[in-house]
Amino acid sequence: MTFGHWGKLLRVNLTTGKTTTETLDELFLRRYVGGWGFIGYYLLKELAPGIDPLGHENKLIYATGPITGQPMAGGGRHMIGGKSPLTGGFAASEAGGFFGAELKRAGWDAVIVEGAAQTPVYLWIHDDQVELRSAEHLWGLETADVEERLREELGERRLRVSQCGPAGERLARIANVMHDATRAAGRTGLGAVMGAKKLKAVVVRGSQRPPVADPEALDALAKWFRDNYHQTGSAVFSTLATMRMVRVNQGVGGLPTRNFQHGVFEGFENLTAERALETITVGRDTCYGCPIRCKWVSEVKSDTYPVDRKYGGPEYETAGSMGSLCGIDDLEIVAYANQVCNANGLDTIGAGVTIAFAMECFERGLLTTEDTGGLDLRFGNAEALVEMLHRIVRRQGLGDLLAEGSLRAAHKIGRGAERYAIQIKGQEVAMHDPRVKYGHGLGIGVSPTGADHMHSVHDSAYTSKGGIADLESFGIIEPLPFDDLSTDKARMVRYGMMLRVLDNLTGMCMFHMWTPRQKADIIRAATGWPTDVADLWLAAERAYDMARAFNAREGFRPEDDMLPPRLLEPLPEGPAEGKAPTEEQYRAALADLYGLMGWDADTGAPTRAKLADLGIAWVADLLEATPRA
Amino acid sequence: MTFGHWGKLLRVNLTTGKTTTETLDELFLRRYVGGWGFIGYYLLKELAPGIDPLGHENKLIYATGPITGQPMAGGGRHMIGGKSPLTGGFAASEAGGFFGAELKRAGWDAVIVEGAAQTPVYLWIHDDQVELRSAEHLWGLETADVEERLREELGERRLRVSQCGPAGERLARIANVMHDATRAAGRTGLGAVMGAKKLKAVVVRGSQRPPVADPEALDALAKWFRDNYHQTGSAVFSTLATMRMVRVNQGVGGLPTRNFQHGVFEGFENLTAERALETITVGRDTCYGCPIRCKWVSEVKSDTYPVDRKYGGPEYETAGSMGSLCGIDDLEIVAYANQVCNANGLDTIGAGVTIAFAMECFERGLLTTEDTGGLDLRFGNAEALVEMLHRIVRRQGLGDLLAEGSLRAAHKIGRGAERYAIQIKGQEVAMHDPRVKYGHGLGIGVSPTGADHMHSVHDSAYTSKGGIADLESFGIIEPLPFDDLSTDKARMVRYGMMLRVLDNLTGMCMFHMWTPRQKADIIRAATGWPTDVADLWLAAERAYDMARAFNAREGFRPEDDMLPPRLLEPLPEGPAEGKAPTEEQYRAALADLYGLMGWDADTGAPTRAKLADLGIAWVADLLEATPRA
Repeated sequence: MTFGHWGKLLRVNLTTGKTTTETLDELFLRRYVGGWGFIGYYLLKELAPGIDPLGHENKLIYATGPITGQPMAGGGRHMIGGKSPLTGGFAASEAGGFFGAELKRAGWDAVIVEGAAQTPVYLWIHDDQVELRSAEHLWGLETADVEERLREELGERRLRVSQCGPAGERLARIANVMHDATRAAGRTGLGAVMGAKKLKAVVVRGSQRPPVADPEALDALAKWFRDNYHQTGSAVFSTLATMRMVRVNQGVGGLPTRNFQHGVFEGFENLTAERALETITVGRDTCYGCPIRCKWVSEVKSDTYPVDRKYGGPEYETAGSMGSLCGIDDLEIVAYANQVCNANGLDTIGAGVTIAFAMECFERGLLTTEDTGGLDLRFGNAEALVEMLHRIVRRQGLGDLLAEGSLRAAHKIGRGAERYAIQIKGQEVAMHDPRVKYGHGLGIGVSPTGADHMHSVHDSAYTSKGGIADLESFGIIEPLPFDDLSTDKARMVRYGMMLRVLDNLTGMCMFHMWTPRQKADIIRAATGWPTDVADLWLAAERAYDMARAFNAREGFRPEDDMLPPRLLEPLPEGPAEGKAPTEEQYRAALADLYGLMGWDADTGAPTRAKLADLGIAWVADLLEATPRA
Repeated sequence: MTFGHWGKLLRVNLTTGKTTTETLDELFLRRYVGGWGFIGYYLLKELAPGIDPLGHENKLIYATGPITGQPMAGGGRHMIGGKSPLTGGFAASEAGGFFGAELKRAGWDAVIVEGAAQTPVYLWIHDDQVELRSAEHLWGLETADVEERLREELGERRLRVSQCGPAGERLARIANVMHDATRAAGRTGLGAVMGAKKLKAVVVRGSQRPPVADPEALDALAKWFRDNYHQTGSAVFSTLATMRMVRVNQGVGGLPTRNFQHGVFEGFENLTAERALETITVGRDTCYGCPIRCKWVSEVKSDTYPVDRKYGGPEYETAGSMGSLCGIDDLEIVAYANQVCNANGLDTIGAGVTIAFAMECFERGLLTTEDTGGLDLRFGNAEALVEMLHRIVRRQGLGDLLAEGSLRAAHKIGRGAERYAIQIKGQEVAMHDPRVKYGHGLGIGVSPTGADHMHSVHDSAYTSKGGIADLESFGIIEPLPFDDLSTDKARMVRYGMMLRVLDNLTGMCMFHMWTPRQKADIIRAATGWPTDVADLWLAAERAYDMARAFNAREGFRPEDDMLPPRLLEPLPEGPAEGKAPTEEQYRAALADLYGLMGWDADTGAPTRAKLADLGIAWVADLLEATPRA
């Protein structure tokens, strides 16, 4: 008997139409926990190196964690993985909302979708009833419409949908997977994997509370959070939500502006959380079990750019990527751009950074109106932004190129355009400038999914005695300034990353500021495992290292962990004027982090000793046995 | 303000007679915690490599932990360290009883004694009153007599004494440091360091409860233990104490017999705990704050070998080393031998194994009656055993040689005598045969103090689901058989060792079967640190690695981690007949453990990356800057 998990995996082969159930035993669950742990395990075991991410050999893996679907705050997360069409490496992206909890409540810890359908299908999971159904009539529809059609068709209001939008159907490498039409598994281009498989959606309805070892203890923890979250770091998410970061980052001089050319934006006041509350924000949505309600809902009545509540509203990342990064100081446009992305399944970060890249290319003459089909693609041109989003979705003109992401587009444009593609491993950098967060920059550098703000904490977690509280569980007891990139900062980054991955493994939302010990308490209560902070940390390292191993097998090298050149150039003005890690400094910090993590300096892969230390020497066997892609 | 510790170190220079007080700040305390952590820190910082352990440059360090002196079970431990006269490397030995608690209650976390006196002195610490006094009148006295004289002289019944006996005065390298005349800091020859410094004793009287961050929480934990220890692994210590191991080890075929030539002893029944209770055991003593009362007190009324209660009674190690190991099946003799050792400050393990070595040399003709001064030094000759102990203390005849320990004696005897010296790094192996505990054997191999049963858990902690419960805190979830020596066993050994060192750091007795999480709870309550299992584990690694670094600087090499050849030869009979790790297997396991621990395969020292990972890159700087001894 397992608790916290069901011990059940659903495998669906789209080529054959066959579905099978597999048992996940307790040793497997203890070792790999969930999320990245499951994804890394199956990708390493089941994908041959070098396969085409958009080919039928790729797999799409839905993974929950022991907390997913538990009736408690933070239990609304699930993870999707595969081989990334954007980076060519490990893909994993997580989403909140209700889908993950519903999948778990349907009795499944994970779903592996393999093969590819000839014609569009969707997967309908109703508890243990599993069915592949035609999605011909849904193909091409926007996400909210698909949700609506599915509810009608299946006669079930309370189902939950994970789908690719039209962007994914058309294999945009910056396509995401949408849930509830508002919650994106945004990064690494997994929408295109769905599109390539002709899998329009995974639809679930579940009816059982996942098994819990100690329901009273778990409920007590859930109650503690409801009663006390206002006194934790979670409080800020319930007041100004993620949008507050506009003012915070502007204040420290690191609000990504005009494709990271600047760290301050003259129009930032128009993008702040306060302004959003006065203008576009009309309500607050939430995820499964969560009292924080950080999901702001926008509505804009307008003839040109109307915004409907059904697509939620922009978060900070979108305010940055569609706002300051494109030189746009209009929240209504930002909300509209957000709606276009959510309706069509485009990653707002990937799309915004790619368009900002194109804008810079345009301003620098690398792209002309001939390339843009007449669009005046300058920073600040809101109409051009919106139009370009549509063209990306339709893969029309320059949009067809930008749908490939900034790096591939830069290669095509040539003439040094790469220096304006602000990406790592092909994935665009999110709205957190490493020049005001040196530690965060190190974390996004080594992240196996490419630049990914979900896998590295911000330097505010390193710079004060209060900030490092969670790191004290790992013997980090002295804060360091944001622009420190010493070995001790690398230590902090290591544990910061692992705390993030730990949330991912367990299915816990990172906005829930449980202490590491509380997290261990939660997992103990849910699973009955005599787990502890050390055990969970090692599980996180296990998952992280499997992802690094996957990438090494695909040919990634330490050079791929470098920041793009621009982020090593000093910020030109503002509170952080002159700040940037030097290349030498960053390389030294990478070397330090490799040492701390037990990664080989030549390959970037975890060493055999490290893998053995984690009890997964089989990964070393695999790396040694498999020719590199 | 610090809690758990006072933040105060006393430094006493015997050459100058000067005493100074130093402050230990919170960062230092968090990082090094106590015990080995303090000892390793100061030895690395303050001892030049290559110094003579018996010279004035050596230092004698008393170190407590945050639990020492707290009014709770297990809080009666303190550690003594220095450079070992026996191994030439890191010396640390711990003791129970009341001395450590008293030292802590006197307001001191640690004492460093440096230099050497011209004439015998003792150090009298009465709270913050510190005085060096003449010990001329105590020199040469047996330990209980010294205790008595000090009580009279200082007019204080409740003082506590840490002293070298006559063996230490005469620089026997197997001399220990005695407390309460019954509790030995037995290993690594620290009694000789006291003798060399002409420091007869450290005498303390304290009157204050150490500061505690959360007294209620700590008291609740203490109460929990008093109420529940019978339901924990500690229960066995309160029933048959350590002596039960005679039957256990005989049962598995690993009761060290006749200098480890055998693993079963025909006379074992006469050495069992049950037999002790019927014969020599007349009472039960305890340590500070402890309800277990595992310290059995012996009394034997006899004209030839009378045993007095004041010297306590033999524990398992002594029943083995003076009993089966010497082929002697007489508990009265064992108790008498124990008394000779306690009265004179000889390590019963070191002395017993060294005499067993000599017995084998005698039986094999490497020693003759000419060497032994007429003694028929055969296995089983109880009179010869007792006489040889006296001669070691007096350094008379062959005793003068054996006082140097088995390895030095073997070198002197020559003709291949080394193969009968059952030691690692010069320190004698305790009564746990690695051939029935392969994992334990790996742990005693790498222990920085040489073969030391205190730094490696027994394989019973690895072989069953219940056994590995504590290791589950570190992701170890599958038991392995005792004769497994795979990489996964090495993982277990790693964490087993760290749990032991963690007890040492914190000042907690290892017979108190708190879970790792409870230990973290205790340290949190005592210190107020937001510590956790991971943090404490890392602190243990820090301490362990400092000790390894100290040894590497002194010229130790991986070869020094090998088991003596005999322990790689199959046991000839009994339940474990044919069992022993092969040399190849053991070397492979060492290599695995090096990898897991982050130790360099060539030097055996922790790598810079590992030390950086622990936040003590300064140790790497030191190793690189210091020429090897």
